[in-house]
Amino acid sequence: MTLKVALAMPAQTARAVFPARSLDPLEPSLTLLSRDPLQDFRTQRAQAVLRETDILLTGWGCPMIDDDVLDHAPQLKYVLHAAGSVKHHIGAACWERGIQVSSAADANAIPVAEYTVAMIVLANKRVLQIARVLHTTHAEVLPEQLFPDMGNYRKRVGIIGASRIGRHVIRLLRDYELDIVVADPYLTEAEAGALGVERVSLDQLVATSDIVSLHAPSLPSTRNLIDAELIRRLRSGATFINTARGELVDQDALLARIQRGDLYAILDVTTPWVLPSESAFYTHPNVLLTPHVAGSLGNELERMASSAVAEALRLARGEPLRFPVRAEDLAFTA
Amino acid sequence: MTLKVALAMPAQTARAVFPARSLDPLEPSLTLLSRDPLQDFRTQRAQAVLRETDILLTGWGCPMIDDDVLDHAPQLKYVLHAAGSVKHHIGAACWERGIQVSSAADANAIPVAEYTVAMIVLANKRVLQIARVLHTTHAEVLPEQLFPDMGNYRKRVGIIGASRIGRHVIRLLRDYELDIVVADPYLTEAEAGALGVERVSLDQLVATSDIVSLHAPSLPSTRNLIDAELIRRLRSGATFINTARGELVDQDALLARIQRGDLYAILDVTTPWVLPSESAFYTHPNVLLTPHVAGSLGNELERMASSAVAEALRLARGEPLRFPVRAEDLAFTA
Repeated sequence: MTLKVALAMPAQTARAVFPARSLDPLEPSLTLLSRDPLQDFRTQRAQAVLRETDILLTGWGCPMIDDDVLDHAPQLKYVLHAAGSVKHHIGAACWERGIQVSSAADANAIPVAEYTVAMIVLANKRVLQIARVLHTTHAEVLPEQLFPDMGNYRKRVGIIGASRIGRHVIRLLRDYELDIVVADPYLTEAEAGALGVERVSLDQLVATSDIVSLHAPSLPSTRNLIDAELIRRLRSGATFINTARGELVDQDALLARIQRGDLYAILDVTTPWVLPSESAFYTHPNVLLTPHVAGSLGNELERMASSAVAEALRLARGEPLRFPVRAEDLAFTA
Repeated sequence: MTLKVALAMPAQTARAVFPARSLDPLEPSLTLLSRDPLQDFRTQRAQAVLRETDILLTGWGCPMIDDDVLDHAPQLKYVLHAAGSVKHHIGAACWERGIQVSSAADANAIPVAEYTVAMIVLANKRVLQIARVLHTTHAEVLPEQLFPDMGNYRKRVGIIGASRIGRHVIRLLRDYELDIVVADPYLTEAEAGALGVERVSLDQLVATSDIVSLHAPSLPSTRNLIDAELIRRLRSGATFINTARGELVDQDALLARIQRGDLYAILDVTTPWVLPSESAFYTHPNVLLTPHVAGSLGNELERMASSAVAEALRLARGEPLRFPVRAEDLAFTA
């Protein structure tokens, strides 16, 4: 008996995340009940499909799966989410009834890490600052006279948070001759050794790193984690990269420090999400702003579909989920 | 008897490339005759040092090593160059007398590959184009509406030239989910398989790649390699990256194609080296110019010193050179 699979998400999500080719690998080891996603669990069609469904593949905007939905889904054993956070559609009922849940948070972490590593390399070498001078002056530029500290050999990269994203950054940086230090209260010495990084305090990290990249989750306890005092201690010439959340940072203190002229910032996230048009972050030459593009966008959404489909194929082979989400994890992750 | 080492290069090169710490590993397994480099082989001090020298560590601007110099260096067996090309200081006499030569061309290739990979990742995701819109409009930007083709999942990267740099790019891209094709007349099918890439013709490469990155040497035979016809065939939306040499490309045809609006370019090299101030390359939004910064600069020069020092230590242990240069290689390399 092959496991039966259905999709649950808005049609728009399905179009963006699950191109036809992404579902093809499901067959023949699983039965895909319909390529047409369930958008509303209360319709007659949805309830007919739910009755037979063993595995639900979900995406952004999937409606909440609560007791009511589960009453119509007597076979449902697995919810495989093709996006990061399951908080918005996995109700308490799922955990109570022992539904196994998986997410594509790991696949979603990959493009953030790729963005971060590209920015680290360019920042250590001042490439974008130098390009700006060249495009402004239309004349010869002598890079080492502008930036004697340039280069990517043995610079120190400080990773705040050995999160999924932080670990992917560390993995991608393996092939670079950079020294990596990590500040994370949950990282053990043994884990740091296995990752090939040095564990340091947040204080030490900001005081000694050429690059400080933030990869901590946004939780009540991490609000304002990078406070005015830590910002004051950042090395002269350092680059601060934020692909996490604006509210983790004292943004006024950050701007004030940038305006002193000896700090660079690459900010994919800010508070508010869209800065007011008069914000000095838009105009200061030491700042590169991007509008929350580090996460999965464009064809990177398909990586999350592939991740969920790979989970379904593991179940078909009788293997455990690779990226399970447990109720107790939710307090510590985004 | 430990081998005796001397340095030969201008004082300025020695200061930039060989900080004191880079020479420390030589001792005690070798004898460093002086930390003060020979800048002119004709002085009395130089000739006294040369008389005892087994290994010469050289750097940019080292004077030509010809018969005259070699007549004063009866012990000299090795010249280890802490930079890329040995063409400017290794005279025919060195090859004729069987001097073994090594270069840091491989170490010098690393930053070029790092620059290239960072640019590939940002270009596939249109990050710098999107940042430019954000910094110009100071308002909300919807990236996927601007660039529906964005993303780094399964895009095709075309590498022209399986050179040192091309191979380092391939190595660094190992950890990315990108498809790599390579055009190189000297690359065998077996080598391509070992590198995990697909071998294609230059025509196929330009017609099918999202990124086209040039890593061919500058030789009479490669002048205008990327001609008007190949430029015409580049995919709509593709990004052309040149970290090699301007003269490999029909620059007028490239500009004309960019001005059609469906091609992007990242150019670290141009012809002439510094473009005239009225050049449209400075102002077109699809172009990112950098002033020949991809190669070793700043602290990356020390990587080349470390590479030369590592070669000396191999000789001290009786091992062969890792990066030998042979007379017959010179026709095929930069």
